[in-house]
Amino acid sequence: MRVEYINSFITSLDHTFQTMLDCSVARGRPAVKNSSTPKFEISGVIGLSGKAVGTVVLSFSRDVALQAASHMLMCEAKEINAEVIDAVGELTNMVAGGAKAQLAEYELMVSLPNVITGRNHAVRFPSDVTPLCVPFESKWGPLSLEVGFSPIREPAHA
Amino acid sequence: MRVEYINSFITSLDHTFQTMLDCSVARGRPAVKNSSTPKFEISGVIGLSGKAVGTVVLSFSRDVALQAASHMLMCEAKEINAEVIDAVGELTNMVAGGAKAQLAEYELMVSLPNVITGRNHAVRFPSDVTPLCVPFESKWGPLSLEVGFSPIREPAHA
Repeated sequence: MRVEYINSFITSLDHTFQTMLDCSVARGRPAVKNSSTPKFEISGVIGLSGKAVGTVVLSFSRDVALQAASHMLMCEAKEINAEVIDAVGELTNMVAGGAKAQLAEYELMVSLPNVITGRNHAVRFPSDVTPLCVPFESKWGPLSLEVGFSPIREPAHA
Repeated sequence: MRVEYINSFITSLDHTFQTMLDCSVARGRPAVKNSSTPKFEISGVIGLSGKAVGTVVLSFSRDVALQAASHMLMCEAKEINAEVIDAVGELTNMVAGGAKAQLAEYELMVSLPNVITGRNHAVRFPSDVTPLCVPFESKWGPLSLEVGFSPIREPAHA
């Protein structure tokens, strides 16, 4: 999969935030993830499989997660509870789903969205995968999109 | 998907640890995850999609991760580095792959294994999914297997 795949995810995130949250996002420069890539407190993670195999990670600062969930729930979320987890998972699902539609030739299927919490968590990829990380700024604070696809991958052992 | 699916993952974990690590595991009682479920420092996460959609999470205490990686790498791993991350991801991939073979009627595909690090991380599922958590003990310490499938899931929005 060529690195242009990242554009489908960027477009999808932009569209999802605009339509679901009425929130514009300003995109920073896509870069290969390294140790200075900022970490956020809450991350939605969803797997993709088909003719390519990959993962989408959407990481939010606490404020972005709470404000986005408040908008979706139409009531103020004050802590990272099950409703906020669901909102972050659903946003991740929608970003992955929108990109999947643009990458039809890979016949991707999305897995279940999981949400990782914990102030110092890191979501790591296999070392043969080079994920691209895209920072965004929103009116609620920073977030990031990270997408990695495996170039070649053996079928899992039976 | 009926809860018996968990047996395929238990068998696969047992087989993977025995053949890859020469390590027997003693299984505890499967239970629905709750707030008292122990958290470990490093978790392999892999998505499954097909006629069912789910996630497998394999969580290791630090010692189990280091010892398992040392066995696979045939040299002593002293810290959670890229090689240990890869080893945990590969074990997760193998556990998912073995179970997938036993659950052929669901035509599951596995996504890329990601590995979550961070002392207080939690891997959360959508609230309409009830993951089953199975504790294990090994000669290196405790680990856990967690698997959740979505009963019904709308296709992701385009």
